[in-house]
Amino acid sequence: MAEYTLVVVRHGESEWNQKNQFCGWFDADLSDTGLEEAKNAGKLLKEKGYTFDVAFTSVLKRAIKTLFFIQEELDLHWLPVTRHWRLNERHYGGLTGLNKAETAAKHGEDQVKIWRRSYDVPPPTMEKDHPYSSRKERKYAHLDAKVVPQCECLKDTVERVLPYWHDVIVPTIKSGQRVIISAHGNSLRALVKYLDNIPDSEIVGMNIPTGIPLVYKLDKDMKPVDHFYLADEAQVKAAMEKVANQGKVK
Amino acid sequence: MAEYTLVVVRHGESEWNQKNQFCGWFDADLSDTGLEEAKNAGKLLKEKGYTFDVAFTSVLKRAIKTLFFIQEELDLHWLPVTRHWRLNERHYGGLTGLNKAETAAKHGEDQVKIWRRSYDVPPPTMEKDHPYSSRKERKYAHLDAKVVPQCECLKDTVERVLPYWHDVIVPTIKSGQRVIISAHGNSLRALVKYLDNIPDSEIVGMNIPTGIPLVYKLDKDMKPVDHFYLADEAQVKAAMEKVANQGKVK
Repeated sequence: MAEYTLVVVRHGESEWNQKNQFCGWFDADLSDTGLEEAKNAGKLLKEKGYTFDVAFTSVLKRAIKTLFFIQEELDLHWLPVTRHWRLNERHYGGLTGLNKAETAAKHGEDQVKIWRRSYDVPPPTMEKDHPYSSRKERKYAHLDAKVVPQCECLKDTVERVLPYWHDVIVPTIKSGQRVIISAHGNSLRALVKYLDNIPDSEIVGMNIPTGIPLVYKLDKDMKPVDHFYLADEAQVKAAMEKVANQGKVK
Repeated sequence: MAEYTLVVVRHGESEWNQKNQFCGWFDADLSDTGLEEAKNAGKLLKEKGYTFDVAFTSVLKRAIKTLFFIQEELDLHWLPVTRHWRLNERHYGGLTGLNKAETAAKHGEDQVKIWRRSYDVPPPTMEKDHPYSSRKERKYAHLDAKVVPQCECLKDTVERVLPYWHDVIVPTIKSGQRVIISAHGNSLRALVKYLDNIPDSEIVGMNIPTGIPLVYKLDKDMKPVDHFYLADEAQVKAAMEKVANQGKVK
């Protein structure tokens, strides 16, 4: 029996999605389209009568701003919001900043697909002098350098996201608070993999569309009873295909 | 010797400021002018090289959004933000929603001035069926009804703000984190009164301009060594007069 409702949403399109660059922990802003997607996510939630008591997001502005515009639509500016690095996008290491199509042309589309879509093959590590090095960022300065990833395969992302799920988000949901999470393609994939018990080989082919709220109905033990997107099937399918097409040679 | 820097900022003009209505705990949005003031506050801070580690604001969107647009200008979306009702504007009780000029015409400009500017004369209480009753708002639902004010004189606001200052903000500053507070005319007046030891009779005539960051340099015991606005004297004076003129019969 469904006891709790959890809503997760993947941030709207970023300026780097638009330019087809590997983004990861680079703090790209929402594009104008992404901003509209965020507002639309808020409108969908409002239309269907959803509301929340608390929100979680990453320390990356594309997720934080998506949440802000959802709050704006729901008139929930006052909601307590926690930003946490464990909800960040997968860290793309040395690929960060590279144009996906160029990388595909250079390394081959198959290699790019492996880096993006394999479960346990990490991309090349981020060198210390990388122009977008996360090591230089103040928001990670309180963390042990060993904890800050320099590249991640999806398996790494899962292992980094789940402690936050178990230790912070689950107790919040169990306390009866209605939770919304605004995060990223891969941090949400990590969560969905865990919740729905999706095998390694299948999760890599699963795409979460941007800006469409995904609702989980959970039983008292946090097992999903049901899940669904707040949009009709055609919209969800089109949005998934758009995401899947990123990284193809153009 | 100055050990710590604290920055406080009063939210930009709200839609109710514009309509000259008593606002208090009513959750009025920023006006377009207020939004520009917020962005300008961020630009002033950026120009002068200020940055922060943590932010505090109220549970009212005009202060939350002012902070958001400051974060946007400073590229500090990731900053931990705590929203707390103790930083809210003074609660104007039964006056909430009344046009200030109409109230002045009805009760006399002097009575309005007393309600707005006296230190310890509270306005009429907010009746249970008041259209803007704070009792109905979900964001205060976790509080004992005895704690949620139904009207406040400035003295009440001071007494409600200071526990949060002492128990939460001071330890944060002393931990070495650079703090910004985005709040309201009267919650900031409460703080300024305490910090600068301003007598009851003087604080009521002191106006904090909107959207101009006010910097406090504090010694190791949290005593102010210096304070100044991040704008030139003429700008500060003009902004103070604008605020002082609200509530005059028009």
